[in-house]
Amino acid sequence: MRYSQLLIPTLKEVPAEAIVVSHQLLFRAGFIRKLAAGIYNLLPLALRTVHKIERIIREELGRAGAQELLMPAVQPSELWEESGRWQKYGAELLRFQDRKGAWFCLGPTHEEVITDLVKREVRSYRQLPLNLYQIQSKFRDEIRPRFGLMRGREFLMKDAYSFDATAEGAHKSYHQMYNAYRRIFERCGLDFRAVEADTGNIGGSLSHEFQVLAESGEDEILSCDHCTYAANVEKAELKAREVTAGEPTHAVEKVSTPGQKTIAEVAAFLKAAPSALAKTLLFKADDKIVVVVLRGDHEVNLPKLKALLGGVEPVLASDEVVSKITGAPPGYAGPVGLAGVEVVADNALAGATDLIVGANEADTHLRHVAVGRDFTPSKFADLRLARPGDRCPRCEEGKYVTHRGIEVGHVFYLGTKYSVAMNARFLDDKGEEKPFEMGCYGIGVTRTMAAAIEQNHDADGIKWPIGIAPYHAMVVPLQMKDAKVVETAEKIQADLTAAGLESVLDDREERPGIKFKDADLLGFPFRIVIGQKGLAGGTVELKRRGSAEVLNLSPQDAVAHIQKAVAAELQKSA
Amino acid sequence: MRYSQLLIPTLKEVPAEAIVVSHQLLFRAGFIRKLAAGIYNLLPLALRTVHKIERIIREELGRAGAQELLMPAVQPSELWEESGRWQKYGAELLRFQDRKGAWFCLGPTHEEVITDLVKREVRSYRQLPLNLYQIQSKFRDEIRPRFGLMRGREFLMKDAYSFDATAEGAHKSYHQMYNAYRRIFERCGLDFRAVEADTGNIGGSLSHEFQVLAESGEDEILSCDHCTYAANVEKAELKAREVTAGEPTHAVEKVSTPGQKTIAEVAAFLKAAPSALAKTLLFKADDKIVVVVLRGDHEVNLPKLKALLGGVEPVLASDEVVSKITGAPPGYAGPVGLAGVEVVADNALAGATDLIVGANEADTHLRHVAVGRDFTPSKFADLRLARPGDRCPRCEEGKYVTHRGIEVGHVFYLGTKYSVAMNARFLDDKGEEKPFEMGCYGIGVTRTMAAAIEQNHDADGIKWPIGIAPYHAMVVPLQMKDAKVVETAEKIQADLTAAGLESVLDDREERPGIKFKDADLLGFPFRIVIGQKGLAGGTVELKRRGSAEVLNLSPQDAVAHIQKAVAAELQKSA
Repeated sequence: MRYSQLLIPTLKEVPAEAIVVSHQLLFRAGFIRKLAAGIYNLLPLALRTVHKIERIIREELGRAGAQELLMPAVQPSELWEESGRWQKYGAELLRFQDRKGAWFCLGPTHEEVITDLVKREVRSYRQLPLNLYQIQSKFRDEIRPRFGLMRGREFLMKDAYSFDATAEGAHKSYHQMYNAYRRIFERCGLDFRAVEADTGNIGGSLSHEFQVLAESGEDEILSCDHCTYAANVEKAELKAREVTAGEPTHAVEKVSTPGQKTIAEVAAFLKAAPSALAKTLLFKADDKIVVVVLRGDHEVNLPKLKALLGGVEPVLASDEVVSKITGAPPGYAGPVGLAGVEVVADNALAGATDLIVGANEADTHLRHVAVGRDFTPSKFADLRLARPGDRCPRCEEGKYVTHRGIEVGHVFYLGTKYSVAMNARFLDDKGEEKPFEMGCYGIGVTRTMAAAIEQNHDADGIKWPIGIAPYHAMVVPLQMKDAKVVETAEKIQADLTAAGLESVLDDREERPGIKFKDADLLGFPFRIVIGQKGLAGGTVELKRRGSAEVLNLSPQDAVAHIQKAVAAELQKSA
Repeated sequence: MRYSQLLIPTLKEVPAEAIVVSHQLLFRAGFIRKLAAGIYNLLPLALRTVHKIERIIREELGRAGAQELLMPAVQPSELWEESGRWQKYGAELLRFQDRKGAWFCLGPTHEEVITDLVKREVRSYRQLPLNLYQIQSKFRDEIRPRFGLMRGREFLMKDAYSFDATAEGAHKSYHQMYNAYRRIFERCGLDFRAVEADTGNIGGSLSHEFQVLAESGEDEILSCDHCTYAANVEKAELKAREVTAGEPTHAVEKVSTPGQKTIAEVAAFLKAAPSALAKTLLFKADDKIVVVVLRGDHEVNLPKLKALLGGVEPVLASDEVVSKITGAPPGYAGPVGLAGVEVVADNALAGATDLIVGANEADTHLRHVAVGRDFTPSKFADLRLARPGDRCPRCEEGKYVTHRGIEVGHVFYLGTKYSVAMNARFLDDKGEEKPFEMGCYGIGVTRTMAAAIEQNHDADGIKWPIGIAPYHAMVVPLQMKDAKVVETAEKIQADLTAAGLESVLDDREERPGIKFKDADLLGFPFRIVIGQKGLAGGTVELKRRGSAEVLNLSPQDAVAHIQKAVAAELQKSA
């Protein structure tokens, strides 16, 4: 292609709302244009990258035995009522009536449609396992669309759904998809982690997020520096601490702590480390009050607490409730002497002695408190947020390191949540009716493109990984009026094409500086510059985007160099 | 692929609403399933054919210089208000509010979005011409969705839009797209006609429909049996008849025709041919009455009349108006002696003598009426529907033959309709602001799949053209328990795959009759049957779908035969 024939509206400025780098660069490099809040036109360069991601997805899911279909974007309300989500989904589900007054929604996801389809068409275990996917525009009416393609309202998604006869089979399907996802993101050239994740509101019991590592990521990930364990911070487990069975050496003592309420205040006032304190938090869970005790320097992990409570959402108790239960103003709660409420403690407090805790009395704390002597939790559990430096729960030697990540894929083992709700059953090998065991698997296609930029850019623009670059190379003739320069550039482009490589020839009558700036901004992996000076010596300049090194090579060698590098990259991830 | 792993839910019965053959066969062969009225799931086999059509479209449009992008399905009302279509479009435009109360629609077409995009991004004639297309799910809230994929509400469409600096350039873009469309439908293996079409309500002045010929088609097409001219019957022109300057030989004579009102009645009563009569029709056009006179055996063509009236929609006058103007009950109107109204006549009546016409008097006709002597129209024009057998207007020797067609593509020269309405301008080579000259070009992707079936089927099922078949071949081992049969089938499939051919191996434990029936129903172009008997002699059976001939060939020769046939077919249309 020639640059002059392509729609590449590059710009210097960005709109004020573009605060993340992928939004800024996609806009400046002419990849996207906004149509409405969270709704974007994907211009030709963006669509080329999208198609490359889609092709990788199709190849890898095909290899994993999945079949592609296409479900409608417009879905009737009846199916959502069957699953119970018509009421539950909230305002993100865009609902509307057709001309006859029937209610529909714009699909944000397709569990209902696929479950209904499989329920009607699959009757026997002989037809299982079945794994069906589609690539499609989804719509979620986000209350605050932002970050360009990172959190839009209309976006491209790959969604897959597996159906198995048994939980065992479903786990096998899950792991096939997990492996396919690893290959997909490897082939996209992304540095990512597959992390264990909380299953949140989608339900199910096994879940991994695929997180592209980038400083700008919204999610915090902890991974082991020794083994392969990695998890979203919400999910990251901790080793059950061995009890250091030290005997308490002091009796409990009241100390006056006037006006000192927070851990930091009390620690400073009493000249103790925050880890020598325990914090006492009161939660409401349904109609019950649960008291959680953690070490002063630890933070409670709500999903872990929720799991401990059997799935009931814990809500921090109001000041009023705290005062009523403890008999003291907030800031002075402590586990000693609390009656009529359940007290649970984090594993880190097992066997702890010499703790400083609130005295359940205004302006007063207790010190030399020993767990087991002065208060006895009903349970010890893993209730805190893991931190970098914490010991890995899955190996003996590793410690947690922290990353920021962008979630681009998610795999869920759903179990029978939807098949039971929608009465989707098959006959098993004994002729008995069973609900399908399901899994669901998503990849944000446009989000993956944005995440690739968050991870791969510099001050000058995008640095596309080879596997998903819109084109492999930019061919830049410096003097458009010099026939030899132009002919050489055209010959190089023809040779690249013949070698199966995609390139743009920058045929614009622009100064070299502008061409170089645009080439860096667009971020194709290779740039070949053809100028009069170099040609006098028989060479052109080859540069890898992001590298400072410039190679002076014959046109043939430049093409061969790119061909080799692209083949090596594709080989690496194949 | 193995049959047992694919989702191919074939059925014997069809729903009562499936009255056209493509709907019946797509349903029975497990290609589609209905989700709601006019809204369908495309199952894996259907999506394979859709992807093949899409690939052909992408290759040919790329060759024609068009660039692919992707615009949102959800469009803000503001743009439609700018173009004036928010009010005009009617209930087919599905409108809704987002969670913040802003109005949007689900795009039935994208003139507004693309015009707005190009208006913002293209400023100079140097950036033109520009041709942008997308392939996307569209939504039109049809009042009566029917015929399966032929007239659905959600459907896949390719829509392209060209932008030029001049009308001349726009015509060039139009003809490039016209040629690309010819190649696309040739490569799809379809028998089609590119026909001149009325531009209808989309506007513009030049338009071709691409019609797939099929008996079940909703459109009537006339094509010349000698030259390439073809047109929708609404548009088909007629040669201006040379005046046969016969002198009138009789004086006008009144005849009593009691109760005889229709052409057929009067002709029978007076023992004359219908072509010896003239019919007189009164139309209201805005506030004016226009009288149209045609030969008795001819039918008026309303789009032609509308064009003659400068675009005003003609509406047949009520009986009351007819009686008031003619002074006679309906059935006895005639052109002789009508005062105060404009009379126009079809070309076929130029110089006609001895006509029988209504006398503007109850139960009475006139005979021996001569045009020019007894009444003089203000204009002669081409006002009638063309018929098979009429002489071609573009060549000397040809005559019209008739076909039924299914519209699968449409190209329009739009001119400046949208660019003026939306103030989309560029600077021309003199620095002057000009509105873009536009064209728009659609292909119904899912409709093309359905039309291919309407054209290519028999009582047993679909007969896919090679270019768009989901798979090239069905490999049918007859005895799944015979290791040699199964091994040979697997070897054949492996060889087909190695030759770049796509196949399904029917590994089901079913009787041969069922496997054959399903193979015919699914309609892949080739079927290879591997049985114990044949293998004893070293052969397998090769059959082309729709042909009665069965070839007994070695496995290698069978593969080579298919490979050659597929290559020849692809060659033919390349």
